Amino acid sequence: MKPSVLSIVGLVLATGSLLGAEPSPGLLGFMPEHVKAQQALEQKFDQQLNPADLRAWLETMAAEPNHVGSPHDKLNAEFTLAKFQDWGWDAHIETFDVLFPTPLAQSLELVAPTRFTAKLHEPAIAGDRTSDKTQLALPPYHAYGADGDVTAELVYVNRGMPDDYKELEEHGVNVKGRIVIVRYGGGWRGLKPKLAYEHGAIGCLVYSDPIDDGYGAGDTYPKGGYRPADGVQRGSVADMPVYPGDPLTPGIGATKDAKRLPLSEAKTVLKIPVMPISYADAQPLLAALGGAVAPADWRGALPITYHIGPGPAKVHLAIKSEWSLKPVYDVIAMIKGRELPDEWVIRGNHRDGWVFGAWDPLSGHIAMMAEAKSIGTLLKQGWQPRRTLVYCSWDGEEPGLLGSTEWAETHAEELQRKAVLYVNSDTNTRGFLQASGSHALQGLVNQVAASVLDPEMHVSVQARLRASVLVAGNNKNASAAERALARQVAAGPEVPIGALGSGSDFTPFLQHLGLGTLSIEYGGEDQQEGVYHSIYDSFDHYDRFGDPGYHYGVALAQTIGRVMLRMAEADLQPVREGDFSDTVARYLEEIHSLADNLRESTTRTNQLIEANAYILASDPTERYVQPAPTGAVPFLNLAALDNAVLRLKQSAAACDTAGAKALTAGLPLSGPQRAEIESLLQGMEQSLTDPTGLPGRDWFRHLIYAPGLLTGYGVKTLPGVREAIEARRWPEAEKYSDLTARALDRYSDRLDRLTEIFTPAATKN
Amino acid sequence: MKPSVLSIVGLVLATGSLLGAEPSPGLLGFMPEHVKAQQALEQKFDQQLNPADLRAWLETMAAEPNHVGSPHDKLNAEFTLAKFQDWGWDAHIETFDVLFPTPLAQSLELVAPTRFTAKLHEPAIAGDRTSDKTQLALPPYHAYGADGDVTAELVYVNRGMPDDYKELEEHGVNVKGRIVIVRYGGGWRGLKPKLAYEHGAIGCLVYSDPIDDGYGAGDTYPKGGYRPADGVQRGSVADMPVYPGDPLTPGIGATKDAKRLPLSEAKTVLKIPVMPISYADAQPLLAALGGAVAPADWRGALPITYHIGPGPAKVHLAIKSEWSLKPVYDVIAMIKGRELPDEWVIRGNHRDGWVFGAWDPLSGHIAMMAEAKSIGTLLKQGWQPRRTLVYCSWDGEEPGLLGSTEWAETHAEELQRKAVLYVNSDTNTRGFLQASGSHALQGLVNQVAASVLDPEMHVSVQARLRASVLVAGNNKNASAAERALARQVAAGPEVPIGALGSGSDFTPFLQHLGLGTLSIEYGGEDQQEGVYHSIYDSFDHYDRFGDPGYHYGVALAQTIGRVMLRMAEADLQPVREGDFSDTVARYLEEIHSLADNLRESTTRTNQLIEANAYILASDPTERYVQPAPTGAVPFLNLAALDNAVLRLKQSAAACDTAGAKALTAGLPLSGPQRAEIESLLQGMEQSLTDPTGLPGRDWFRHLIYAPGLLTGYGVKTLPGVREAIEARRWPEAEKYSDLTARALDRYSDRLDRLTEIFTPAATKN
Repeated sequence: MKPSVLSIVGLVLATGSLLGAEPSPGLLGFMPEHVKAQQALEQKFDQQLNPADLRAWLETMAAEPNHVGSPHDKLNAEFTLAKFQDWGWDAHIETFDVLFPTPLAQSLELVAPTRFTAKLHEPAIAGDRTSDKTQLALPPYHAYGADGDVTAELVYVNRGMPDDYKELEEHGVNVKGRIVIVRYGGGWRGLKPKLAYEHGAIGCLVYSDPIDDGYGAGDTYPKGGYRPADGVQRGSVADMPVYPGDPLTPGIGATKDAKRLPLSEAKTVLKIPVMPISYADAQPLLAALGGAVAPADWRGALPITYHIGPGPAKVHLAIKSEWSLKPVYDVIAMIKGRELPDEWVIRGNHRDGWVFGAWDPLSGHIAMMAEAKSIGTLLKQGWQPRRTLVYCSWDGEEPGLLGSTEWAETHAEELQRKAVLYVNSDTNTRGFLQASGSHALQGLVNQVAASVLDPEMHVSVQARLRASVLVAGNNKNASAAERALARQVAAGPEVPIGALGSGSDFTPFLQHLGLGTLSIEYGGEDQQEGVYHSIYDSFDHYDRFGDPGYHYGVALAQTIGRVMLRMAEADLQPVREGDFSDTVARYLEEIHSLADNLRESTTRTNQLIEANAYILASDPTERYVQPAPTGAVPFLNLAALDNAVLRLKQSAAACDTAGAKALTAGLPLSGPQRAEIESLLQGMEQSLTDPTGLPGRDWFRHLIYAPGLLTGYGVKTLPGVREAIEARRWPEAEKYSDLTARALDRYSDRLDRLTEIFTPAATKN
Repeated sequence: MKPSVLSIVGLVLATGSLLGAEPSPGLLGFMPEHVKAQQALEQKFDQQLNPADLRAWLETMAAEPNHVGSPHDKLNAEFTLAKFQDWGWDAHIETFDVLFPTPLAQSLELVAPTRFTAKLHEPAIAGDRTSDKTQLALPPYHAYGADGDVTAELVYVNRGMPDDYKELEEHGVNVKGRIVIVRYGGGWRGLKPKLAYEHGAIGCLVYSDPIDDGYGAGDTYPKGGYRPADGVQRGSVADMPVYPGDPLTPGIGATKDAKRLPLSEAKTVLKIPVMPISYADAQPLLAALGGAVAPADWRGALPITYHIGPGPAKVHLAIKSEWSLKPVYDVIAMIKGRELPDEWVIRGNHRDGWVFGAWDPLSGHIAMMAEAKSIGTLLKQGWQPRRTLVYCSWDGEEPGLLGSTEWAETHAEELQRKAVLYVNSDTNTRGFLQASGSHALQGLVNQVAASVLDPEMHVSVQARLRASVLVAGNNKNASAAERALARQVAAGPEVPIGALGSGSDFTPFLQHLGLGTLSIEYGGEDQQEGVYHSIYDSFDHYDRFGDPGYHYGVALAQTIGRVMLRMAEADLQPVREGDFSDTVARYLEEIHSLADNLRESTTRTNQLIEANAYILASDPTERYVQPAPTGAVPFLNLAALDNAVLRLKQSAAACDTAGAKALTAGLPLSGPQRAEIESLLQGMEQSLTDPTGLPGRDWFRHLIYAPGLLTGYGVKTLPGVREAIEARRWPEAEKYSDLTARALDRYSDRLDRLTEIFTPAATKN
């Protein structure tokens, strides 16, 4: 898996220079006298990184299918364990037993108005050496879809998102008792069958339209890297926006003896059969649809006129799966801290793929291994980190963040007490730095980005990213968001990191446990989408299109390596709270605009409905159903949140100033004072969580960042308030305004206490 | 032909009512005591309109190919003449001899890397009864392209517009010595080979991509109305933005004895061979291209990956034409005015098609015939118009507005002395009112639109149009222009009519002679683009998809009939000058924004170029050439224009007020005063022209409205200033600011003189 929203990072310090950041005078979190030693350490770290290592590990680990339960998945766990141990880490394998259904039989036929039997098979491709080694691979399927045998009329529902169903209603079409065909994209995969089910559909087909990742995007594999006609995107359809991890053990670790739900009570398992198909299999089905011509933005790149249906196309869909528990193997490796052993700096990347998984996830995993090897060398040279380092090779991410979630749930109490940072990566490729996470870490990421060279352009990865943001914002077709971001970057000195939704293993750490978190990868010059979750996500494909030369693998190791080493060594955890308060203030502005715009558009639309305008504007030869008016949008009381953000900005500014001064003064503090500071900082992010969680999904506790209930991977910031407004639940919006305000106040309390401790120290020298 | 930019009109009087305009208290230009008689006249006029007439005329006139020089074109002229005469009009045929090349031989082959011979033929289609009557039809071709026989590498240039060549340059590709393949759309057809030639290409292929008018737009003919795989869009590629009409007689009528240019000196004849092709013929050529993958917005709906080239595709293109003069037959019919015989109210629609021409132009022509028949009946009942009515059935519009331009040039002096209005129509179909023209006529059009019932919705055509504008502006994907228009409409009481560029026979009247002009049609619920300029533009196709029942043909006759009868009968020409001044003020605001935005974007882009940002943002595995910096945009002196517009607003408001009062008072004026008023109004629009015309194209003399030199059909308002800014010719922008200011001052002088005459009259009662 990987997040569907690109996140970005960059930095400029000098307003006079468009791209170049002036060398930073120091390192965040370090006393001036410790900076040189840290830089020397990082140089030594860099010297151990060797692209040939990455290539060799990738070729070995992607040689066979490595999904959960496969022999090669276990072999890869053992291979990783052996490497870590070899490099000097204290490593072990931790096993969980999770529900992981696999298909026994699947079929799909068009039964009217003509007959066609779907192939449901990805053939071998010349030049891709593993594409015929699929004897042990799972066929294309959707994990956690229901078993079933259904025959019904087909309806095309575009991306299958809420607005698409509104559009269908305006055409007088519904999906009750029907099977929907939906194209990938526009929202997370798992929402498509879920929303289809909620609208009454009895089955769901999800296909890859060539406009998105096939010949419409670029040359197809093997000529180029994009999806060939028979390529299929597998994937999980578990209802992860409710909770990820094992469906049978929500909130607790899936250990051998864990108390498990019966399958029938597992809220995240889907209720209808669902199947992913190729565009070769989809075309005859779509071509057989009648009814209205699909709206312009529903049309893909198949050489047909897209129709909505329902019918006359009728399909027969049958799926039967095997529903047993399977083991997942997490490899956990540690190096104990020399001064603060109970502060853990954690790093993770998953290891399981849907088939060979060369891109997803092994490209990120090999970078993590390179870091671990290099740190191992430092260790052998006598170095030991100030704080404890924990490296994790997760299993079972693809079906539902299984390995990371079960480990985080099992060790929740210890993690909430000890963890100071979790850094994730997943697929990594040529291109631009993509960093997201807790905004107090924005300064750290920026300083690191300024010190890593882009392998292609030989400027800092930050300068290159900055160029790309400015160029994108200056494009005449730039979106409003792109323009706004470019303005922010041009105004300097900082560029925001993104906010995290879901789609990879950071989720349990950030949104369930409330730990400071980062996700860092490179990307944007790849053709990954063409083979995403197919058998063609292979070593041969990655070696041509992903990161030939493995220089971005090395760049990722350098980038995350610095983040890990700085967090591990810093005199004071390297946070800058003003970045967090500025960001939250921006989110709150968005919330106000959201409510205001919704109020205006609702009024306008209701007036038009009342005036019969939609009917008059429609073509009477086509069926059209005017939407019903919606209730007016009241003015909301968000005063608590407005006040909390105001206070946060003041508290953050004061704390940053006092902390920086204290650091420059050499932190002249007592032992208990230092301990209190570390403890205040360690629990900082947790103060943003609420034990009652978000509405209908108490597993998600973070009140600033969450995956959207209706976006899946995509983030919703200030989610309790934002999603309530979007869903027009006004009392809930106000309730979450209050809850979020209280969380921010707890955060400000900690900032104020830190300022209190820092201030005498700051003035001492 | 038809204009490519939809123009719109609507009206709201009551701000309390979203859609309904209150019945207007009077009629613009009529004394209160004459309103009832006019309304009774219009009722009688309506009673004669019979949809069965329209259908019968269409079937007869579209029975055979009727292009310039065809036997059926002449027969249709005689048929039209006989009808007019039969209905009591004083009618005759006026003939001109014009250069009109027709193809003798054409061929197109792909010669490398594989071979393919293009079909270049539109086959008969079952159910379309004329599609096999093509023995006398011209094959698909581009009129006024050069003869030639060329073989060269192919390059795909998207729409072939200036920005596309900039994009090509950034890919390091040029078209020198090559043949380009370009898709229809995004700009006028004739600009595509012209720009290709200017960039060094030696040949040009223009194809219809299915995304625009084939299966990507809707079901293809005969299942639906959209372009079948072998359908081809013919058309003229004469350089009409320089001058329309016969290429050999610019500015003068192509009468028998006219002094003609040698062909080699005809500026509007193209210099390279160019050919229109179907998507069936285009696909093998496009599929054979290599080079970079085309940018996302260059891709159409063919099931291939679009590449730019150049090569390896190589094509051989050969065209040989017959270059003789051919006759065009204009039918001119008059009814002399009873009081003001030397004030002419002129109406026109062309009669020639590219093949059968049922949609284009006969659907508009039959509405015009219905008006003429009805007026004939009124005449037979003893009525005679106050001003003279002139009805014109133009020939030769398709190759280059030949019939209308040559007639207008021949009778220029008389027309500039006598014409008070020219009203044009062309293709007319189901849907919404589309009105554009001289903005002083906006009030007249609005009053008429409020009195014509929409045949499908049974509200006024104005109410329906208003609904459509408001709904479009409320769509979440609405463009900035759509939103702005909806805001304007919602604020009431008026909705703007559009501005006229080119694309039909209004051009010589408005932009060469400077006559008050309107273009009025219905459309927007049709599938015309699917058969536009092909053999499938047939009676059978129009009868199914154009206006089944011919009710919009009747609605057009009602709409234009009222406009003609009101202008013919009015006590005072029904203009409202405030609409013109408001509109010009808006255009001037646009000009200021244009210059400001260009200044900002130039600065921003140059900074990014200087900082190497485009290089850093590019993918080094793909060829990328950073654009060169452009000169900074100075602040322009547009003060003369600012002042002229300020004065115009004041003069227009005063004139409207004084005129309305004088009219209510019964126009107590002397004969010479009335004559002076009529003369001032008749020459009003001409004061907006300048005899030196626009830069490089002195045929176009109007300083407010012109077809864009780089848009072809699309309008540019305040064109001398706007196009100079767009082309970064700063001194020219300031020169045309002054010239345009002088024109507006002349207009204001007339307004002030009118006010002077009106004022004593207004206070007399």
